[in-house]
Amino acid sequence: MTLSVARRGLMLVLSSPSGAGKTTLSRRILTSQSDLVMSVSATTRAKRPNEVEGADYFFVSPERFAAMIAAGEFLEHATVFAHRYGTPSKPVMQALAQGRDVLFDIDWQGTQQLKEQAREDLVSIFLLPPSHGELERRLKARAQDSDDIVAARMAKAADEISHWAEYDYVIVNDDVAVAEAKITAILMAERLKRSRQTGLSDFVRSLA
Amino acid sequence: MTLSVARRGLMLVLSSPSGAGKTTLSRRILTSQSDLVMSVSATTRAKRPNEVEGADYFFVSPERFAAMIAAGEFLEHATVFAHRYGTPSKPVMQALAQGRDVLFDIDWQGTQQLKEQAREDLVSIFLLPPSHGELERRLKARAQDSDDIVAARMAKAADEISHWAEYDYVIVNDDVAVAEAKITAILMAERLKRSRQTGLSDFVRSLA
Repeated sequence: MTLSVARRGLMLVLSSPSGAGKTTLSRRILTSQSDLVMSVSATTRAKRPNEVEGADYFFVSPERFAAMIAAGEFLEHATVFAHRYGTPSKPVMQALAQGRDVLFDIDWQGTQQLKEQAREDLVSIFLLPPSHGELERRLKARAQDSDDIVAARMAKAADEISHWAEYDYVIVNDDVAVAEAKITAILMAERLKRSRQTGLSDFVRSLA
Repeated sequence: MTLSVARRGLMLVLSSPSGAGKTTLSRRILTSQSDLVMSVSATTRAKRPNEVEGADYFFVSPERFAAMIAAGEFLEHATVFAHRYGTPSKPVMQALAQGRDVLFDIDWQGTQQLKEQAREDLVSIFLLPPSHGELERRLKARAQDSDDIVAARMAKAADEISHWAEYDYVIVNDDVAVAEAKITAILMAERLKRSRQTGLSDFVRSLA
């Protein structure tokens, strides 16, 4: 067992255009990193066949969503394609207080709102696809979507990509295992930042 | 082969009290990281039997050292136990210009001077021993040193440790393989910082 110094949890944001591998990468690092938990968003959009309530999203009515905003229950919320998405505050705050890190799969709008509330604790990563052709191929691969939806998603992807420079780190995802290793390295490095290791003063005193 | 985006080289400083494993760790990451080169210091102190000129240090006379200062050939220099140590500027600048990273094994004084000249490009790591007893044991293990030298080195170690809070990252070295993985993660993460990846704007344009 290695010695451990108390530290503050951090908020790890992973943003990318749809089709850059964000969902796959999120699942992989959640599996490999035991101290990392996912922030599950609430949304008003319809559940897709493969999605699980409470794991992928909390699916709520527009009325319930509005009530949650009014009650100040969101860390951030945004509207995309007429659907609303928001991050419930409570589970995030509980995890951070336990010294765990929280992973956020949110877009640039959500990231900006989160930054305003948690500048010091926020670490943001932007994932880019390896090429225009590969992005197009991945967006077309979702067979259940209509051409209109694919076109709208390409436009949304271009809009999302235009915000890459607002992030702390940028990873080009041309190999999912390499991209996973890079995210893991960022998480490990950020945990080692002096400013996050709240137990260091006590530890250094014990060396004297 | 994975896609590579042009980036700026960085200066990685590793500081620690004597006996915290810095030399061992420096050697290990220089072996594993092909894009990382060591900055070799000049010193006026005598060469130890196991040391190699030009690899461990450039061993120079006090007169030569003073001339190098006068000619502005050092990035930083300091006096420790009546011996002088300095970092020759030219090899560092050449390596950075080639997009390679440079590792510095220098103390807190050198780090502060380097910071003044290279704030953006500097990444600093402080290594701590796992305990007071372990630090003492490691300092006594150098059989060629007299008791006076060990005592002086303990005092110097305490002085060096008192500067831990001036560093970006802090690693407690209780397991050399774990500490090496942590340094490697910091290096990988710092290379992925948006601000260091100078080729990103061009790459993002290629996605449109």
